[in-house]
Amino acid sequence: MTAESTHMVEFAYEVGFLKRLPRTGWLTAGVANPESVAEHSFRVAILAFMIAASEGADPERAAVLGLFHDLPETRIGDVPAVGRPYVQTAAPTEVVADQTANLPSDLAERIGAAIAEHESAKRPGASTESLCSRDADKLDLLLQAREYQEQTGNIAMSAFIDSMLPLFATHTGKSLAEAAIATSPSTWWNEFASKFGTPAATTRPVRSA
Amino acid sequence: MTAESTHMVEFAYEVGFLKRLPRTGWLTAGVANPESVAEHSFRVAILAFMIAASEGADPERAAVLGLFHDLPETRIGDVPAVGRPYVQTAAPTEVVADQTANLPSDLAERIGAAIAEHESAKRPGASTESLCSRDADKLDLLLQAREYQEQTGNIAMSAFIDSMLPLFATHTGKSLAEAAIATSPSTWWNEFASKFGTPAATTRPVRSA
Amino acid sequence: MTAESTHMVEFAYEVGFLKRLPRTGWLTAGVANPESVAEHSFRVAILAFMIAASEGADPERAAVLGLFHDLPETRIGDVPAVGRPYVQTAAPTEVVADQTANLPSDLAERIGAAIAEHESAKRPGASTESLCSRDADKLDLLLQAREYQEQTGNIAMSAFIDSMLPLFATHTGKSLAEAAIATSPSTWWNEFASKFGTPAATTRPVRSA
Amino acid sequence: MTAESTHMVEFAYEVGFLKRLPRTGWLTAGVANPESVAEHSFRVAILAFMIAASEGADPERAAVLGLFHDLPETRIGDVPAVGRPYVQTAAPTEVVADQTANLPSDLAERIGAAIAEHESAKRPGASTESLCSRDADKLDLLLQAREYQEQTGNIAMSAFIDSMLPLFATHTGKSLAEAAIATSPSTWWNEFASKFGTPAATTRPVRSA
Amino acid sequence: MTAESTHMVEFAYEVGFLKRLPRTGWLTAGVANPESVAEHSFRVAILAFMIAASEGADPERAAVLGLFHDLPETRIGDVPAVGRPYVQTAAPTEVVADQTANLPSDLAERIGAAIAEHESAKRPGASTESLCSRDADKLDLLLQAREYQEQTGNIAMSAFIDSMLPLFATHTGKSLAEAAIATSPSTWWNEFASKFGTPAATTRPVRSA
Amino acid sequence: MTAESTHMVEFAYEVGFLKRLPRTGWLTAGVANPESVAEHSFRVAILAFMIAASEGADPERAAVLGLFHDLPETRIGDVPAVGRPYVQTAAPTEVVADQTANLPSDLAERIGAAIAEHESAKRPGASTESLCSRDADKLDLLLQAREYQEQTGNIAMSAFIDSMLPLFATHTGKSLAEAAIATSPSTWWNEFASKFGTPAATTRPVRSA
Repeated sequence: MTAESTHMVEFAYEVGFLKRLPRTGWLTAGVANPESVAEHSFRVAILAFMIAASEGADPERAAVLGLFHDLPETRIGDVPAVGRPYVQTAAPTEVVADQTANLPSDLAERIGAAIAEHESAKRPGASTESLCSRDADKLDLLLQAREYQEQTGNIAMSAFIDSMLPLFATHTGKSLAEAAIATSPSTWWNEFASKFGTPAATTRPVRSA
Repeated sequence: MTAESTHMVEFAYEVGFLKRLPRTGWLTAGVANPESVAEHSFRVAILAFMIAASEGADPERAAVLGLFHDLPETRIGDVPAVGRPYVQTAAPTEVVADQTANLPSDLAERIGAAIAEHESAKRPGASTESLCSRDADKLDLLLQAREYQEQTGNIAMSAFIDSMLPLFATHTGKSLAEAAIATSPSTWWNEFASKFGTPAATTRPVRSA
Repeated sequence: MTAESTHMVEFAYEVGFLKRLPRTGWLTAGVANPESVAEHSFRVAILAFMIAASEGADPERAAVLGLFHDLPETRIGDVPAVGRPYVQTAAPTEVVADQTANLPSDLAERIGAAIAEHESAKRPGASTESLCSRDADKLDLLLQAREYQEQTGNIAMSAFIDSMLPLFATHTGKSLAEAAIATSPSTWWNEFASKFGTPAATTRPVRSA
Repeated sequence: MTAESTHMVEFAYEVGFLKRLPRTGWLTAGVANPESVAEHSFRVAILAFMIAASEGADPERAAVLGLFHDLPETRIGDVPAVGRPYVQTAAPTEVVADQTANLPSDLAERIGAAIAEHESAKRPGASTESLCSRDADKLDLLLQAREYQEQTGNIAMSAFIDSMLPLFATHTGKSLAEAAIATSPSTWWNEFASKFGTPAATTRPVRSA
Repeated sequence: MTAESTHMVEFAYEVGFLKRLPRTGWLTAGVANPESVAEHSFRVAILAFMIAASEGADPERAAVLGLFHDLPETRIGDVPAVGRPYVQTAAPTEVVADQTANLPSDLAERIGAAIAEHESAKRPGASTESLCSRDADKLDLLLQAREYQEQTGNIAMSAFIDSMLPLFATHTGKSLAEAAIATSPSTWWNEFASKFGTPAATTRPVRSA
Repeated sequence: MTAESTHMVEFAYEVGFLKRLPRTGWLTAGVANPESVAEHSFRVAILAFMIAASEGADPERAAVLGLFHDLPETRIGDVPAVGRPYVQTAAPTEVVADQTANLPSDLAERIGAAIAEHESAKRPGASTESLCSRDADKLDLLLQAREYQEQTGNIAMSAFIDSMLPLFATHTGKSLAEAAIATSPSTWWNEFASKFGTPAATTRPVRSA
């Protein structure tokens, strides 16, 4: 065990806070026990990977941008949309510099660069991977709103869905957003549903030999 | 919107189930409302990135292996350790083949390859990235056990910590595991704690101009 | 630290139980993880303040009546409507006499008087403040039923709303009840909703100087 | 205290895990914080008692079959319908043999026989009590789906309801299933609902004498 | 579908409320999200079965008494110990008469008789089965207090454990209570714990044939 | 129903968000499902009432200051201590001006004045009532930390307790803080605990006449 290991572990514990931090927008809308920032970031990374693969960009790079994009929220929290006129926050790149200050410099630079590239999506000359990651961020929100819409009966979800639709930058992002609205979150397990109560013919006992 | 988009969205909704699936081991041990598989996978990906950077491997590849490693659990669930003698499951590579059957073939191959590489960590000739991802899987469990230990007073957490320690394959993984035991999960925010009730000198009003 | 302080703290810990006590009516109706008695009392106090201001009564007095009105529930619980034919409870004024028995007598008298005045709303010659507090009690239930109705899809909420409407004593209470039915709980944040995914023009970095 | 007592207590603690184990099917469908296997088994036992009484079978035997029927899930978990093609589990009678291995042999035999009889419902020559218990298992799922349908707005519940309907073996089971669909889960407390806010005429103070 | 079926289903929905009703004593003691009355009743029934088998009584009868013993709580709630001096409730047999008023008379009588027999445990000439059921009621509380003690770090659990110990009526009940205090709730899965991170040698792929 | 009523109801729904907003500091420290801002404000108001009564100030005024003091958090959220260097927020008086902009002007002024007076506690010449409300804010945090400390086993609670102690402005606040540390949160119900399992001698059946 070294001082370096200790600092890396402290960083890992700080990252762990994102497992406990709820997404504020869902609280505003009255979703009980909503997803955490970690859960959101998990699917953002996977969606960024998928979008980048379709767009001919680097899927691993895009996934990494999505993975780290909300890291600064361990310090600044998840500022809600209703708070925008009232709250100013340090730039994500500034926050991440503090978060990674004690990490090995190579690692700190890599993480800082991921945040900076994700943030650059809003500016001209952005990398395709940053656009994929940013679209993934919006797409996960839209998918989650659809899930809450069908799973909890919360009628305010349409406000989230409608506000996302015009914001996608990539062709794939736009196309997936439209498909998300047209597809039920329960389609993937629906064919299984017809077998819920039936004896499973495929189930043979284990260990009987 | 295309059939391809619809299939990609169905896959994304299936991925979303990992946000709702609790990690079974914590339930056995009596942790109330434990983390989801998505939350676990989120930090596994970040830890794999960190370990790989230290080990001189490809951090982005390692992160992607960590990100996808529990994907088959949407179908087979999170089989608990107490269930091992009683449950046989299809190989993860078989499950993922079904999960990605309707995706664009390039994307399906990429995801299948990530699962296969992560699983190969148990076999000779494994890539360093797969060892990093596998160590990250164990390290996140250890970190989480430490967090529950200090945050919920659950005295059974030591069983999880002790069973993990001998299992790390990389030098960095071992070193971080030792540091995780020696470091409190609250160290990272402890210096802030002394200022909880004090007027924040740095807080200047926004919008006053 | 004195014996008096210790008794005041014991009382404060007893008050804290209302943070943990769910409102039974919502459980009957199948609302998962419903609000606590403390959360209810919080908005009752604010509503009582608002109604009293409109009615030309003393807003601070009305708020205090609302704040304390469910204090006896630390001992008798929140008896559900379905339990009325089967349960008899001591009068609130009797319960509060026991709860405050060890407090400084001046403080005990003030709290007892607040409970007694709130309870007097059901009898002729009631103070206007007690009518405001009682209307606030009913109005918070109605508002909460509306919130659950739109946020959880629970179709039984209309039974709560309908049973409240005829019970208001003040002009303001009646008028607010009607407005509560006509107004969506999400109206207040709806104008923000259109900006959920957009870059916040008003957000300038902090600490950049 | 004897070794026998210790083994019985270890078994009782293992049974306690069913209080913490969520029913997987509800998680798949997006029900937040769904019922536990213990809660399910509780009503299955009562329903089996009711169905058996109507069918002229032994209500106490049927209740006991329902009570124990999911006991093996402490070891094999609650395998979801989507997992059937991918998961093989040991036979329930094999699992229960391990679970009860240290119990007094008379007790172990009684519990093993209950599991075996419940499982025999799928085979020719099944006892009426096993059919009642198995119908109760399906009926509780249907009732719970109806409750979630009206209480949480989850639109996927119809898939569960529809898949259950054809599966009942007893006349009473069929009849109750049809009635469950036609009856609202809130009917039983609806007549009370009209009195929610009214002073309860029947409530006289206690302890005033 | 008949009127009789409808009434039986209304009763089954009323029983379902016990899945949602938390045990009040745990709320008082600060246990977050405590077990439901249904979860409690589930293990009470199993413990009654076990105790009766050891005492040479009828295990099925004892289980049925335990299963139904808290049924009146759908109407009167779970009155906490702190409420005893302030709350009077109708006798359980009176409540159950109302609850079962619309059931087929044979079924209503059986359920009423179960409640009456369980309640008779406090009086001379009680059946052994009623003593087993009553001891099971106390034993489940003690086991649950031990589980919360080790799983949540709640230091008030000893008050529950200590108050139960003198109250057991049967030899088996006393002996199990002593064993419950001497045995850790995690003993049953402890031997599995050493294998948490290891590749499961017994796991062979399914469907590979 | 008037436009005024509608605006008052919109404000009441905005207030309702505080029932859903968790206190961020507890999330940082790993408290699962922590109290809401509404629950906090409820006890702050009661504690302010108690402290003011002891200090010879106006208890009702102090309670009202405590009741409203966190109202701006519907817009700016609950900024955590770790976020102070990174987040700037509009002054509470500015936020509340927007929150109450559509209320009747008399009511808007009363609420604005309450926020302003509470905030003035940090400045020279503060009213005694504002000092009582501010001390109540800190005292509730300390009491809650003590409750989590004994009820959840979270070992980080001492950081919260220690940071509060030097910050009290009133004699009563200081004295209660010391008593809070010396007194167990379970003392108030401890005498009842010895009667948990005993037949309640005082419980006579209701409705038997």
